[in-house]
Amino acid sequence: MTALLTDHYELTMLSAALKDGTASRQCVFEVFARRLPAGRRYGVVAGTARLVDLVRDFRFCEAEVEHLRSHGVVDDETAAWLSAYRFTGDIEGYAEGELFFPGSPILTVSGTFAECVLLETLTLSVLNHDSAIAAAAARMVTAARGRAVIEMGARRTHEESAVAAARAAYLAGFEYTSNLEAGFRYGIPTAGTAAHAFTLLHDDEPAAFASQVAALGKDTTLLVDTYDISQGIRNAIAVAGPELRAVRLDSGDLSVLAQQSRDLLNSLGATETKIIVSGDLDEYAIAALAAEPVDMYGAGTAVVVGSGAPTAGLVYKLVEVDGRPVVKRSENKATVGGRKTAVRRHKPTGTATEEIVVSQGAPEQQLGDRALQRSYLTAGEPADLPTLAESRAHLRQCLISIPWEGLKLSAGDPAIPVTMISAS
Amino acid sequence: MTALLTDHYELTMLSAALKDGTASRQCVFEVFARRLPAGRRYGVVAGTARLVDLVRDFRFCEAEVEHLRSHGVVDDETAAWLSAYRFTGDIEGYAEGELFFPGSPILTVSGTFAECVLLETLTLSVLNHDSAIAAAAARMVTAARGRAVIEMGARRTHEESAVAAARAAYLAGFEYTSNLEAGFRYGIPTAGTAAHAFTLLHDDEPAAFASQVAALGKDTTLLVDTYDISQGIRNAIAVAGPELRAVRLDSGDLSVLAQQSRDLLNSLGATETKIIVSGDLDEYAIAALAAEPVDMYGAGTAVVVGSGAPTAGLVYKLVEVDGRPVVKRSENKATVGGRKTAVRRHKPTGTATEEIVVSQGAPEQQLGDRALQRSYLTAGEPADLPTLAESRAHLRQCLISIPWEGLKLSAGDPAIPVTMISAS
Repeated sequence: MTALLTDHYELTMLSAALKDGTASRQCVFEVFARRLPAGRRYGVVAGTARLVDLVRDFRFCEAEVEHLRSHGVVDDETAAWLSAYRFTGDIEGYAEGELFFPGSPILTVSGTFAECVLLETLTLSVLNHDSAIAAAAARMVTAARGRAVIEMGARRTHEESAVAAARAAYLAGFEYTSNLEAGFRYGIPTAGTAAHAFTLLHDDEPAAFASQVAALGKDTTLLVDTYDISQGIRNAIAVAGPELRAVRLDSGDLSVLAQQSRDLLNSLGATETKIIVSGDLDEYAIAALAAEPVDMYGAGTAVVVGSGAPTAGLVYKLVEVDGRPVVKRSENKATVGGRKTAVRRHKPTGTATEEIVVSQGAPEQQLGDRALQRSYLTAGEPADLPTLAESRAHLRQCLISIPWEGLKLSAGDPAIPVTMISAS
Repeated sequence: MTALLTDHYELTMLSAALKDGTASRQCVFEVFARRLPAGRRYGVVAGTARLVDLVRDFRFCEAEVEHLRSHGVVDDETAAWLSAYRFTGDIEGYAEGELFFPGSPILTVSGTFAECVLLETLTLSVLNHDSAIAAAAARMVTAARGRAVIEMGARRTHEESAVAAARAAYLAGFEYTSNLEAGFRYGIPTAGTAAHAFTLLHDDEPAAFASQVAALGKDTTLLVDTYDISQGIRNAIAVAGPELRAVRLDSGDLSVLAQQSRDLLNSLGATETKIIVSGDLDEYAIAALAAEPVDMYGAGTAVVVGSGAPTAGLVYKLVEVDGRPVVKRSENKATVGGRKTAVRRHKPTGTATEEIVVSQGAPEQQLGDRALQRSYLTAGEPADLPTLAESRAHLRQCLISIPWEGLKLSAGDPAIPVTMISAS
């Protein structure tokens, strides 16, 4: 991990601030979204644990500092400062798996201007990407109504984004990923059996199925749509018997094909054989299959590109300097400077009603309020964080707590409002 | 680089194929797009040189193989095979910076089934991502009509995608990137000066500008829209004098503001001071500013997320087994199996008219034809590849050669047709 995953202007600002003495001013930067992607009713915080690891290792190595110096990006004084850099400030924020809305202060980074400004690009890269995927994935999980969803989109996004996307999708409730590195790095269950190439490789479809069953047993999934689907299902059951775990359909009108396939499987005695469908599924396509006899969904492109919203719209803004709130005059009036404290307010039934965000103070605590911020790093030292499984469970709870309209796939307003209060 | 950037099913297919003997069949896999993103008139090949480096280093380390074995992804025989794996086949394909259309065989991977099937996920991840960014970036460069464009989207995409995106945007004609790692890794010129945070950090705007000019000289860009833009420009010139290199506007109605800013700068004697605009610019917003006195564009979100098409729609399909062409029956009829050879046909004037793609044979060569495929790896050994600057020049030439309708931003058909011929 290199600290060069940073925008040029962070270093020119640093150079100038080191020269004029403002580099040591105590600053608070805040990560928030001015708005959700069009029509979305909630955002999902994801990537923060990944970010904490990256911040801990955020260092400029000798060759990098020399590159920056020799290319005139920084002067000698700044180069020396970069060589010694490590973040020693504080980071607090919303838990992974927490929902957010426009104005939610999902991450607060405090320390000197110099040490905090360098983290802008990395922080936004991680949170904008992972939160975008998690939000899209959460909608797909809702649409799947309890049926399992497999993430299989690695091939549609950058090779490293793919691993982070698998993590975000699992956080959002997906059951499996196809990505082996995500399994290795994060312990996410992986799944996958065969592509059309495997059938085409063999002399005919029965030969391919027989080979797969010989190698993997009957507890496998046969891909039956390389040639004719009905014949594919007949071949699958002829080879594996009715104990075959599943068949997969990857093309065609899945609504019609799922029902036909179920009927055919049943007529062949394979009443327990599952049907897995894949092929350009997004949350709407998944929802449209709710009434069909589908057992599992495979989602690829749509989840890894955020299903129409590939980035979460999060920004990293300076909100406080030496205890004084600051704000751009060109912002809309809702923007408030100063360090924020946030709680989510709930009815006695547990349903969330609003988020209260107070600048330079703390919300008046009411019964049913839940504090939304936790510590991630203190004086540069990472805190113990929840496991990915715990964050996954947390999101499930959060989604249960919002008003039911918030779970609709159709375009609408944020599920709950954020009330911004300036205590000063 | 780990070979685990791979889908689970590649390894289950490998296991079964090793058991039944088909793993050693000689195969040809082809990368192509069935269609372009809706309304796009061309695709741009990008990422291939990056892929070649990754394929050369594509190895399973001991801990990874043990993870796969202990999690039941592979059996002992396959684990042993993976430990010894390196790709020893051939890869040929279109040059980086080449245009492509539906059906263009942009990459051909040949070797045993076993060694080729493992590269599917990595190959598609790299090419789908980088080509999507390059295509969007090329449209922005066209829209900018010779004015420079800076890529500044790192914060809107995964931290590693950001580096690849900067490379793809530079390939497509961008002049600079904000991403320092892209500068370090690929030698791309980097640029950047200051964010609003730098102004807010200081006691007032003149203090911030004075600090920046003291550190960076007058050959810098002052961001003038933190408070009032007119006052910002007055402050900028008061501090730096009319020799100031540039001002940047990052918000508001840029058409109106650019003209007002130009007038004000001229009235202050700063007739040579450039105007740089940024803030949610995509190819349409850039085109809409063509008549305004803008000198440079900063593009962020839109370029790194492919401006509505975040993935290039490329697939990796088995087309030939032991010399025999293969094809899924469920494909549309335009799909043809077999190894392909492609040329682009041109009028005597140099304008491209069509692409001729022949399966299992070579096109009849005509005057003005240009062969589109080159070698990337032979028996696992990488060929010498063009530099990034050469690929950038190649794309510029290719864009000049297509019919002028092909450069329109509006939705339309592919700029030239692909004629598919089966020689056998």
